[in-house]
Amino acid sequence: MDIKDFKHITDVRVRTYDVDSQGIVHNMNYLKYYETGRVEYRRNFGHNINREGIFDDGLKVVVVRNEIDYLSFAFLDDLLKVYTAVSWIKKSSFCFEQIITKENSTEIISKAKGILVNLDENNLPSPISKKFIEEITTFEIKLKILSNE
Amino acid sequence: MDIKDFKHITDVRVRTYDVDSQGIVHNMNYLKYYETGRVEYRRNFGHNINREGIFDDGLKVVVVRNEIDYLSFAFLDDLLKVYTAVSWIKKSSFCFEQIITKENSTEIISKAKGILVNLDENNLPSPISKKFIEEITTFEIKLKILSNE
Amino acid sequence: MDIKDFKHITDVRVRTYDVDSQGIVHNMNYLKYYETGRVEYRRNFGHNINREGIFDDGLKVVVVRNEIDYLSFAFLDDLLKVYTAVSWIKKSSFCFEQIITKENSTEIISKAKGILVNLDENNLPSPISKKFIEEITTFEIKLKILSNE
Amino acid sequence: MDIKDFKHITDVRVRTYDVDSQGIVHNMNYLKYYETGRVEYRRNFGHNINREGIFDDGLKVVVVRNEIDYLSFAFLDDLLKVYTAVSWIKKSSFCFEQIITKENSTEIISKAKGILVNLDENNLPSPISKKFIEEITTFEIKLKILSNE
Repeated sequence: MDIKDFKHITDVRVRTYDVDSQGIVHNMNYLKYYETGRVEYRRNFGHNINREGIFDDGLKVVVVRNEIDYLSFAFLDDLLKVYTAVSWIKKSSFCFEQIITKENSTEIISKAKGILVNLDENNLPSPISKKFIEEITTFEIKLKILSNE
Repeated sequence: MDIKDFKHITDVRVRTYDVDSQGIVHNMNYLKYYETGRVEYRRNFGHNINREGIFDDGLKVVVVRNEIDYLSFAFLDDLLKVYTAVSWIKKSSFCFEQIITKENSTEIISKAKGILVNLDENNLPSPISKKFIEEITTFEIKLKILSNE
Repeated sequence: MDIKDFKHITDVRVRTYDVDSQGIVHNMNYLKYYETGRVEYRRNFGHNINREGIFDDGLKVVVVRNEIDYLSFAFLDDLLKVYTAVSWIKKSSFCFEQIITKENSTEIISKAKGILVNLDENNLPSPISKKFIEEITTFEIKLKILSNE
Repeated sequence: MDIKDFKHITDVRVRTYDVDSQGIVHNMNYLKYYETGRVEYRRNFGHNINREGIFDDGLKVVVVRNEIDYLSFAFLDDLLKVYTAVSWIKKSSFCFEQIITKENSTEIISKAKGILVNLDENNLPSPISKKFIEEITTFEIKLKILSNE
C-alpha cells in the first residue's frame, strides 16, 4: 500500500525506555507503536476495549503473525506517525498493514503486517462478523475481501 | 503536596502491554508513566531532549531514588493523568513529586517521589544551575530551595 | 540489612532492551530484576505461581509500595545478583528487602524495599496465613514479626 | 528448518510483566526471547558484547527485518526453550532462524526469522567478515552461503 492509501494515523513519542545503547529504538519496541496504532484504529470506529483486552465489536482476536521491516532509524524523543489500515479480510482472519514515518516527513522508516485471527469460546478460529466487514469496507480504500480463504 | 498544588499534567493511556494477568497495570510500568510526566514537565519550559537523553537546560541528571505508592488499581485502556511538580532543590539534586489520577476523577491511585542528581563530566555531583532554579522557582507554588544541603 | 544477612540470590542478565541511550540500565527496569528476585524467592520454598500470577501458598498479594535507590550504574550484559529477603511481616502485609550487586563484587549498586498486601476475595486486606509466617520465620535471619500492626 | 537442525538452545522464563490481561505472553515480548537467543548464540562462540551493544567479532549489526509466527500460547511462568540458528549468510547480511518450545515438549509455539545487516562506520552495508562466515559454517548444519547476493 502507498502512504496516500492510509486513512488512519496515530502519533507516538519515542521515550527514554524505548531506545537502546546505540541511541536508536530497539527493534522490539516498534511492536508497541504498531499495537498502539491497531488499538486506536479500532477505537476510531467507536468501539471500546474492555479490561480483558477485547473490543465490543463482536471479535475476540489474537495475533498469529507479525512482519516488521526496519528501513531507517528512530531516535529518542522523535514524534512518530503510525499509519494503519486493514488490507484484507479472510473468513476468520484479517491483516493490519502499517507504516511509520517521522513528524513532517513522508520517509517510511518502518513498515509492518500483522495477521489477527478471530477466536470462538474454545479458542478455535471463528468467522469474522458481517458488522466488522461492513465497517472496514466502508472505511478502507484498498481492502480485499477474501471470504473463501 | 495537594492535588491543587500541581500545575503540570500529562495524559497517558494504559496499553495492552502495560497490564498483567490480573488485568491491572504492572507495578513497574507506573515508572513509565512517571518518566513521561517528568520529560513532558521539562519540555514544558521550552527545553528539548537530545538523542543521548540530555535536556538542553544545562543539566545532566540521573535518577538516584524512586518511591512509588500504589493506592488503587489502573486497568487496561484507562486514560491516566500524571501530575508533576518539583518539590525541592538542593545543591546538586532535586525532587519530582507526582501523583496519578484517572480521567474525570480526583482520586489519587498512585503517588511518587523521584530524586535526580546533576552530574559533571566525571559523573560526580555538580551544582544545579541558577537558570534551572529560577525557572522552577517562577513556575512552582510549593517549592523549597535547600541550597545548603 | 547487611549483605551477609541475605540467604536468597537470583542471577539476572542486563539485556539490550534494558539499557537506555546513556548506555546504563533504565531506572524502571530495576523493578524487573527485583520482581524476578521476589518470584524466585517464593518459588524457592517449593511454591508454584499459577497463570493468574498467584502463588499456591494461600496468599493473593499486590504491591502497595516500592522504594528503589540507585547507587551505581549497571551496563549492558552485566550479570547482576539480586539478593532478596523478607524483613518484616505485619498482620496483612510484609516487606521484601533487596539489594543488587554485580557478579564477583560486593558493591551494592541498588537497593529496594517492596511492601505487599494480602487481599481477600473482595480485594480487602486479609491476614497473612500462619503457614507463610512459619516458612519465612524458619528461613530468615533478621525477620521482624509485627502481627499487631 | 526442523527442530533437530538447531544446535543452540537458551532458556527463558515467562515473567509477570510479559503476559497481558488475557493471561498470555504479549506478542511483542516474543522479540525479547528471540533477542536473548540471538545474543546467547553469539556469546556461545566466545564473543563478548560491549557496552554499546556491539560484539567483539568484527561485526556491527542492525536488525532490518523480523518475522514472527505465533502458533500456540505461552503462559505466565512457562520455561521456554529458544532454538537459534543462522540459516543463510549473504554478502552484507545474515538470517537468524528461531523456534520456541516449552520445557519438555517439542511442540513449536512460535517461530521467527530475523535479518541483520552489517554496517560500516557510515552506517552503510559492509561485507560480513570471513572469520564470522567460518565460525558459523563450522557450527551450523543447514547453513546456506549466498555471498553473491
